[in-house]
Amino acid sequence: MDDFRIEHDSIGEVKVDNSKYWAAQTQRSYQNFKIGTEKMPAEITRAFMYLKRSAAVVNNELGNLDDRRKNAIVQACDEILSGKLADNFPLAIWQTGSGTQSNMNMNEVIANRATEILGGNFRDKAHEKKENIVHPNDHVNRGQSSNDTFPTALHIMAVYEVEKLLIPAIDRLRGSLQSRVEAFKDIIKTGRTHLQDATPLTLGQEFSGYVSMLDHSKAQILKALDSCRELAIGGTAVGTGLNAPEGYDVLVAAEISRATDLKFVSDPNKFHGLTSHDAVVFLEGALKGLAADLMKIANDIRWLASGPRCGLGELNIPANEPGSSIMPGKVNPTQCEAVTMVAVQVMGNDAAIGFAASQGNFELNVFKPVIAYNLLQSIRLLADVEVSFAEHCVDGITANKEKIDYFLNRSLMNVTALSPLIGYENAAKVAHYAHENDLSLRDAALALKVCTPEEFDATVVPANMVHPLKKAK
Amino acid sequence: MDDFRIEHDSIGEVKVDNSKYWAAQTQRSYQNFKIGTEKMPAEITRAFMYLKRSAAVVNNELGNLDDRRKNAIVQACDEILSGKLADNFPLAIWQTGSGTQSNMNMNEVIANRATEILGGNFRDKAHEKKENIVHPNDHVNRGQSSNDTFPTALHIMAVYEVEKLLIPAIDRLRGSLQSRVEAFKDIIKTGRTHLQDATPLTLGQEFSGYVSMLDHSKAQILKALDSCRELAIGGTAVGTGLNAPEGYDVLVAAEISRATDLKFVSDPNKFHGLTSHDAVVFLEGALKGLAADLMKIANDIRWLASGPRCGLGELNIPANEPGSSIMPGKVNPTQCEAVTMVAVQVMGNDAAIGFAASQGNFELNVFKPVIAYNLLQSIRLLADVEVSFAEHCVDGITANKEKIDYFLNRSLMNVTALSPLIGYENAAKVAHYAHENDLSLRDAALALKVCTPEEFDATVVPANMVHPLKKAK
Amino acid sequence: MDDFRIEHDSIGEVKVDNSKYWAAQTQRSYQNFKIGTEKMPAEITRAFMYLKRSAAVVNNELGNLDDRRKNAIVQACDEILSGKLADNFPLAIWQTGSGTQSNMNMNEVIANRATEILGGNFRDKAHEKKENIVHPNDHVNRGQSSNDTFPTALHIMAVYEVEKLLIPAIDRLRGSLQSRVEAFKDIIKTGRTHLQDATPLTLGQEFSGYVSMLDHSKAQILKALDSCRELAIGGTAVGTGLNAPEGYDVLVAAEISRATDLKFVSDPNKFHGLTSHDAVVFLEGALKGLAADLMKIANDIRWLASGPRCGLGELNIPANEPGSSIMPGKVNPTQCEAVTMVAVQVMGNDAAIGFAASQGNFELNVFKPVIAYNLLQSIRLLADVEVSFAEHCVDGITANKEKIDYFLNRSLMNVTALSPLIGYENAAKVAHYAHENDLSLRDAALALKVCTPEEFDATVVPANMVHPLKKAK
Amino acid sequence: MDDFRIEHDSIGEVKVDNSKYWAAQTQRSYQNFKIGTEKMPAEITRAFMYLKRSAAVVNNELGNLDDRRKNAIVQACDEILSGKLADNFPLAIWQTGSGTQSNMNMNEVIANRATEILGGNFRDKAHEKKENIVHPNDHVNRGQSSNDTFPTALHIMAVYEVEKLLIPAIDRLRGSLQSRVEAFKDIIKTGRTHLQDATPLTLGQEFSGYVSMLDHSKAQILKALDSCRELAIGGTAVGTGLNAPEGYDVLVAAEISRATDLKFVSDPNKFHGLTSHDAVVFLEGALKGLAADLMKIANDIRWLASGPRCGLGELNIPANEPGSSIMPGKVNPTQCEAVTMVAVQVMGNDAAIGFAASQGNFELNVFKPVIAYNLLQSIRLLADVEVSFAEHCVDGITANKEKIDYFLNRSLMNVTALSPLIGYENAAKVAHYAHENDLSLRDAALALKVCTPEEFDATVVPANMVHPLKKAK
Repeated sequence: MDDFRIEHDSIGEVKVDNSKYWAAQTQRSYQNFKIGTEKMPAEITRAFMYLKRSAAVVNNELGNLDDRRKNAIVQACDEILSGKLADNFPLAIWQTGSGTQSNMNMNEVIANRATEILGGNFRDKAHEKKENIVHPNDHVNRGQSSNDTFPTALHIMAVYEVEKLLIPAIDRLRGSLQSRVEAFKDIIKTGRTHLQDATPLTLGQEFSGYVSMLDHSKAQILKALDSCRELAIGGTAVGTGLNAPEGYDVLVAAEISRATDLKFVSDPNKFHGLTSHDAVVFLEGALKGLAADLMKIANDIRWLASGPRCGLGELNIPANEPGSSIMPGKVNPTQCEAVTMVAVQVMGNDAAIGFAASQGNFELNVFKPVIAYNLLQSIRLLADVEVSFAEHCVDGITANKEKIDYFLNRSLMNVTALSPLIGYENAAKVAHYAHENDLSLRDAALALKVCTPEEFDATVVPANMVHPLKKAK
Repeated sequence: MDDFRIEHDSIGEVKVDNSKYWAAQTQRSYQNFKIGTEKMPAEITRAFMYLKRSAAVVNNELGNLDDRRKNAIVQACDEILSGKLADNFPLAIWQTGSGTQSNMNMNEVIANRATEILGGNFRDKAHEKKENIVHPNDHVNRGQSSNDTFPTALHIMAVYEVEKLLIPAIDRLRGSLQSRVEAFKDIIKTGRTHLQDATPLTLGQEFSGYVSMLDHSKAQILKALDSCRELAIGGTAVGTGLNAPEGYDVLVAAEISRATDLKFVSDPNKFHGLTSHDAVVFLEGALKGLAADLMKIANDIRWLASGPRCGLGELNIPANEPGSSIMPGKVNPTQCEAVTMVAVQVMGNDAAIGFAASQGNFELNVFKPVIAYNLLQSIRLLADVEVSFAEHCVDGITANKEKIDYFLNRSLMNVTALSPLIGYENAAKVAHYAHENDLSLRDAALALKVCTPEEFDATVVPANMVHPLKKAK
Repeated sequence: MDDFRIEHDSIGEVKVDNSKYWAAQTQRSYQNFKIGTEKMPAEITRAFMYLKRSAAVVNNELGNLDDRRKNAIVQACDEILSGKLADNFPLAIWQTGSGTQSNMNMNEVIANRATEILGGNFRDKAHEKKENIVHPNDHVNRGQSSNDTFPTALHIMAVYEVEKLLIPAIDRLRGSLQSRVEAFKDIIKTGRTHLQDATPLTLGQEFSGYVSMLDHSKAQILKALDSCRELAIGGTAVGTGLNAPEGYDVLVAAEISRATDLKFVSDPNKFHGLTSHDAVVFLEGALKGLAADLMKIANDIRWLASGPRCGLGELNIPANEPGSSIMPGKVNPTQCEAVTMVAVQVMGNDAAIGFAASQGNFELNVFKPVIAYNLLQSIRLLADVEVSFAEHCVDGITANKEKIDYFLNRSLMNVTALSPLIGYENAAKVAHYAHENDLSLRDAALALKVCTPEEFDATVVPANMVHPLKKAK
Repeated sequence: MDDFRIEHDSIGEVKVDNSKYWAAQTQRSYQNFKIGTEKMPAEITRAFMYLKRSAAVVNNELGNLDDRRKNAIVQACDEILSGKLADNFPLAIWQTGSGTQSNMNMNEVIANRATEILGGNFRDKAHEKKENIVHPNDHVNRGQSSNDTFPTALHIMAVYEVEKLLIPAIDRLRGSLQSRVEAFKDIIKTGRTHLQDATPLTLGQEFSGYVSMLDHSKAQILKALDSCRELAIGGTAVGTGLNAPEGYDVLVAAEISRATDLKFVSDPNKFHGLTSHDAVVFLEGALKGLAADLMKIANDIRWLASGPRCGLGELNIPANEPGSSIMPGKVNPTQCEAVTMVAVQVMGNDAAIGFAASQGNFELNVFKPVIAYNLLQSIRLLADVEVSFAEHCVDGITANKEKIDYFLNRSLMNVTALSPLIGYENAAKVAHYAHENDLSLRDAALALKVCTPEEFDATVVPANMVHPLKKAK
C-alpha cells in the first residue's frame, strides 16, 4: 500500500494519506484550515452517524437507495458509532461556517468504508466495478445537504448530551445536596443578607435553596431542550427540500428518534431550521441559568467553609490536596473553584453563541461550527464539574456545629422577632443599643424597657424564627 | 406649608421636600446615590403597587390589618396605579442591591398618602392621632421584607410587560411579515447561502422563515415566562417566612393574580426565590433568541433592499427620511438599523444579567436593581422596535420583480436539479463550464453533452425546485 | 405664532412644533422612531457643538463660508454649549445607525437659530431674504457628512468625559484609598487566599493593592484614550474627503483642540475612521479593567466589613441608611453594592460595544448611536460611583483593631515563616497538628519537636512576615 | 520498574504511574478534576520553565541554592523547553483557581528530573542520598508561591505568544492587504454606506482602510501588552514577599527578560499583581478590537465577492474547496467564514475574562486558569486565522473590473459632486428624478435644467471624487 493515493473532487485532484478513509474534500479542508487546536468533536461525529444511518434507511424505504448500499452504509455508521475509525475525523472547528467540510468528511469516510464492506477497493475507484462503489454525495448524502444535516446533527448532539450526560449530572449533584438538607435539617444558624447578619434559618433550609435551584434549572433546561428536538433535515440546500422526496423530513426524524431512543420531530419550517439558531440560544440561556446557580452555590460553600480560623467556618469540606506550594498545611476549596471557573466559561460561551446566532444571512447561518463548539463545551463542563463537585466536595460536607452556635447566639438580627410586639422602630433601637454597648439583645431590650424578660424569652427563640407564624389551632 | 419638613428613621432625622410624600429612607438614598441618570422605572413602581395592594388585602383578611388602614392603602395604591404621585419615586437604579430603598420609597409614599386619606397629617405625625397614622413598616410592609418584595415586583413586572407589551408587539410584526408571505407566495427567486447563489425558493418562503422565527421565539419566551410566574413573596427576610403568617405566600400570590389578571403562583422554595435569578436569566435567554432572529431578519431585508442600483435590489422598502446630510437623494434602511442596534443592546443586557444573577451570597442576591433595569430595557426595546419596524418598514415592503427575475434566470445553482439525473460530479462540471465560459447553464449542459435539450428543459424548472420531490400519484 | 409650521426636506413637507428650532429631518426621525426611553445624550450634543463651531471657523478661513454666517453659527453653538435650547434635541438612540438624524438635528437647530441671529425669520424662509438664511446642509454641514461628524463627535465626547469626569473621579477615589493606606500602615492582619487563612500583611498593604489597581487602570485608560484622539472629520461621505477642501481635516482637528483645550489629531486614514470603532472597543476594554478592579475592591471591603457579629468584621464602614425594611437595626454595605452593580453594567456595555463595532459594512459602521450610548453610560457610571463610593464609604472606613488582632494571633499560616528553617514538610505537619488538636502553632511545633521555643519565638513574628527577607547589612 | 510507585505529600501517600516524573500533588489533581477536555497548555508550561529556570539562577546568585542543584534545575528546564517530557503535564484547566496544582506539576517534574540528572533515583527517595535530592518546594519553588508564579507565567505567556505568534501574523495579513492596496489603487468603484450606493472611492482606498485597521489594532495590542510586562514574581504567598529575599523580584524579572529576550519588569505593587488581572482584561480588549476589525474585513470581502451572478461580484476570491454537498459547482468564501467565527469566539472569550478578572477576593484572584485559557485561545486563533486568511484568500484576490465599472457608472450618488454647484436640495431632486424615471444622472440633471451639459461633464467625474478638493495652485 502506497503512503498516499490520489482523490479527486469537483475542483481537481489531491493527495490523501492512504491509511485514511477520507477523500478529497476532507483533505482540502485539513490543509486549508490550520487554525487553532479545536477539532470537530466526537460528539458531533456520533450525531452525524445517527443521521446518516437514518437517512440511508429512509432512502432505501423510499426506493432511492438499493439494499446493498443501504446495508453497507448502516454497517459503516454502526462501526463508527462503536468507536472505530475515530482518527478519520481530523477537521478544525474553524472551517467553513456551514460545516460542509465536516458533512463531507462524514460522507467520504462512510462511503469509502461502505465501499470496502461491499468488497470494493476505494483506493482505486477507477478500476472498481460501479456496483461496489458507494458515492459520498450520490449515496451517503442522498436527499441531504450540509445546510440541513449540520443543524440536524447539532440538535441531535444537544439532546443526546443533555439527556445522557448533563441531566444525570444534575441529578447526581442534586442527590448530594439533598442528603445535606436532611443531615442539616435541625441545625439552626444565623442567616446573612448583604453579607450582614440576618434572621436565622436552618442549615438544611439553606441547602434546600440549592436543591431548588437545581430543580428549577433542570426544568428550564428540559423546557428549552424541546426546541432542539426540532430537526432541519429535509430542508436540503435552502429549506425548500429540493431533491428530497416529499415526507422525507418526517420519516428521517422518526428514524433518528427510533435509532437514538430520544424524541425528535421535524421542524415545521425548514427556512427557520437552516438559518435561525434560536433553539440553541434558548438552551444556552437555560445552561447559563444553571451556571449562575452553580456559581452561587459554590461561592456559598467556600465562604461558609472559609477559615479554618479566620473565616466563617460553619462548614467543613474535604481536604483533597495540599493547598499551597509555599504555605504548609493550607487546604483550599478547590472543587468550588473549578465550579466557579466553569460558570465563567459558560457565560463566555453564551456570549459567543448569541452573537453567532444573530449573523445568519438569507437562507443560511454560517456560524454553525462555533455554535456547536461552545454549546458542547458548556454541556460537558457543566456535567463534569457537577459530578466532580458532588463526589469530591458536597458528599463530604459536615457542619461545624460549635461555630454555628457561636454566631447564632450573638446575632443582633434575632431582634426581628420582637418587631410585631414592640414595633419596628423600638426593635431597631434595641439592636443599635446592643451593638454600640456590646451587649446581648436581651440585656439591651431590658435596659431600654421595651419588653419584659418573660416577653423577650418567649419571643426571641431562634427555633421559632425559621418558619412563618403558625396559625392558632 | 414650609419648604422642608423633618422626617426620621432608625438612624436619625433628615430634611425632606415638603411637597413630596416620601420620608426619611427615600431621602437618604436620594442623597447618597447620585449615580448616573437611570431611575427606578415606573414599571417597577406599578408592579410594587399591585404587590403592596394585594398584601394589604391579605393582611386584612388574616386579621393583621384593620379595615380603615387597609382601605386607605388600597386607595393609595390605586391612585398611584392610575398615574398619580409619579414624581415621588426618584431613586437611582444604582442604590442598595436588594432594592430595599425602593421598597421603602413605596412604603413611605403609600403610608403618607394613606395617612392623608385617613384625614391625618403626615407632615406632623408627632401631633397626629395614632389611629390616623399608617406606618411604612408596620402597616404597608406588614408581612414583607425588601428581600421578598423586590424579586416579587421584578417577576410581576416581567410577566406584565411581556404579556401586555412584548407579545402584542411580536404579533404585530408577525402579522406584517405574514402579509408579505402571502403577497410574495408566487414570486420565485434565487436563494443565497454563504452569500453565494444557491437554489431557488419563493420570496414568500423566505419571509415564512421570518414568521417561523417569531413563532419559535414567542413560544420560547412564553415558556420561559412561566419561571417568572413564581413569586418570592412570603419568604420575608431570609426565605423562612419569619413574621409572615402561614399561608400568606399563597394568598398574596393569588390576590396578585386576581388584581393583575395575570397568572402567578408562589415559589415552592423561598430560599431560591430570594437568592437565585435563574428565571430572569432564562427569560433573557429567550429574549436574546428573539434579538438574534430580529437581527437576521433586519439584515436580510436591508441586504435585499440594497442599492438602488449597485446592490441586490430585490426588495423595495419605504423611504422614510432623507438618508444623508451630504449625499442628496440617498435613502437608507433606517428601521432595519434601529432593529439591529436594539439586538446588540439586548445581547449586552443579557451579559449583564447573567453575571449579576451569579453573584448571590447566602440568603440574598444583591444585584436586583441592575437585573431589573436590563430586563426591562430588553423587553421595552424589543417591543417598541418591532412595532416601529412593522409600521415603518415591513408593512410597506414590495418586491422588485424585474430584479428578482434577472437574478433567477442567471443563477448557476439551478444545475442542482440535474444532479439526480446526471450525478453530482457531472452537474458540477456543467456549473464550472458555464461560469468559466460565461454561458447559460443550458448551453453549458448541451456543450458538455451530459443531457439532451429535452431533459434539460424538463428538469431545470425553477418552479419545480421550490419544494420536495412530489410523490408519484 | 401658530402652533405648527411647515418644514420641508428632500422628501417633502412635514409639520413641526413652532416653538422648536428643529426642522423636517429631525421631525421625521422624532415621529418614526418611538423606541425606548433613551435619548441622544447632552454629552453628544456638546461634542457636536464643538465640532460644528470648529468646522464653521475653518470653512470661513478657507473662504467657503462668509463672515456673517460664520459668526452666527459660532454664536448659536456657543449658546447651546452654555445650556440654551436644550429641549431641541429630542431624538432617540434607536434611529439610523449612522446618527445622520442627530447630525441633521444639530444642523437644523444651529441653522434656524443662526438665521434668527442674522435677523431672519426661520419660520417663514420662503419670504426671507436669502442672505439671512443659514442652511443646515449647505452652511452648517459644509465640508461634512454624518459619516465623519458622528464618529468625530463620539471621539470628542469620549475624550471630554474621560478627562473631565472620569479621571478626576478615579483620582478622588484613589486619594481616599491612599489615605486609608497611610492610616492603616502599621496594622498587621492575617492575609486570605482562596478565602482561607494565609500569611500576614498590613492592612495598609492590602489597601495599597487597591490604590495600585486604580493607578494601573488609570494609566490603561489614558493609553487607550489616545486612540480616541484621532478624528474622522474630513473623510466626509465615504472617507475620500469629497467636497471637503484639502487640509480641512487637519485644520478642523486643530480648531477642536483649541476650542476644547483637549488634544486631538486627524485620523491618518479616514476609511478606518468611518468604519472601524477599534478605538472605542479598546477604551471600553480599559474601562472594563477598571470595572473589574472596582468590583474586587468593593467586594473586599464589604466582606471585611461583614458582620457585625457573624462575619469577618475587620473593617467598620459608615452606616448611611437603615438596611432592612423588616430587620430593625441592620446596616448594609450599600455603596459597595452600587459599585458592584455598576461593574456588572460596564461588562454588559462592553459586550454590546464589541459586537456593534464588528458589524461595519463597506464604507460605514451603522451602529454608532448604540456604541455612543454604551460608552457614555460606562464612563458616567464609573465616574459617579467612584465619587459616591469615596465620599459615602471609603473616607469613613476605620479598622476594627480588636477583631484583626484576634484573627492574626490564631492563624495557622504563620507557620510559613518556619518553612526555611525546618522545611516545607515539617512545617505542614505543625499546621495540621495544631488544626487537628486545636492548639496554637507554638504548642504544636514544640509538641512535634521540630524547633526550640527560642527558634519559634525568633522566627514566627508577624511583623517580620510582611516584607521580603532583608539583606544582612 | 514497577508500574506504579508511591509518592507522598503533606496529606499522605498516593500511587503514581512509574513512567511519569510527576509526584503526589500532580497525581491528586489529575484524579480529582476529571472535568472537560481542556488541559493546561504547553504554552503555559513553556512560560513556567523560563520562570523556574530564572528563579534557580537568581536563587543561586543570592546564595540560596547550591550550584549542583541550580545546574540540574536549569538543565531540566532546558530539556522541557526543548520539548522533552511533554507528556508529564496532564492537568485540567478546571482545577484550583490559583493554578497551584500546575505550579506543583512543574515543581515536581523539574525536581524529579533534576534529581535524576544529579544521579539520584527519584523513584526511591527514601534510600537516596540527601544531596542528590532536588525537592519540589524547598528547591525548585524556592522564594516562590503559586500565587506569584502563576500570574507571572500568565504574563510571560501573553508577551511571548503576542510577540512571537500574533504580531507576525498581523504583519503577514497586513502585507497581503497592502499588496492589494497597491494592485487596486487605480480602480474607481462605487462606495456603499448603509448598504446603499454612495459616492465613489478607489478599491485601493477601500483596502487601505483594512490596512489601517490592522495598523491601529497592532499599535493598541502592543500598548496593552506593556501592562503584561509587569511580573508578580517576588510577591510570594500574599504579595508581601515573605520568604523571598529583598531584591529577588527585580532580579528574577531581569533574568526572565534575558532568558526570553523579551522585555519584562517587576510589578511595582505585588498585591496588585496577585489579585488584579486588569492587564489581561486590557490586552483582551485590544484583541477584541482586532477581532471586530477582522470581522468587518472578512465580511466586506465575502460580500464584495458574493455571486457569482446574483451578488455584488466586485471581487474574485480563490476557490479552495467545493462549497456544497448538494449544489454542484458552488464555491464559498470559507476563509472569511473561519475569520468571522474566530472573531465571535474572541468576543466570548473576552466576556469570560472580564468576568473572571472581577472575582478576586482579598489577596488572590482564583480564576487564573480560566483567564489563561481564554487569553491563549484568543491569541492563537487570531494569529492562525490571519495567516490562513492571508495565504488562502487575500493573496489571491483579484478585482472584477467589468462589474465594478458597471456599478460605478450607474450610481446615483455621483450627484453629490453637483452639490457645491447647485445646492443640496437641487442635487437631491436630480437623484430622485433619475431614480423614479430610470434615467442616468446626466439626463435627469439636464431635464431638470439645474446645470448645463458642460457643467455636468466637468463636475461629475468619479476620478475627481475620490479625494478632497485640491487647493488651487
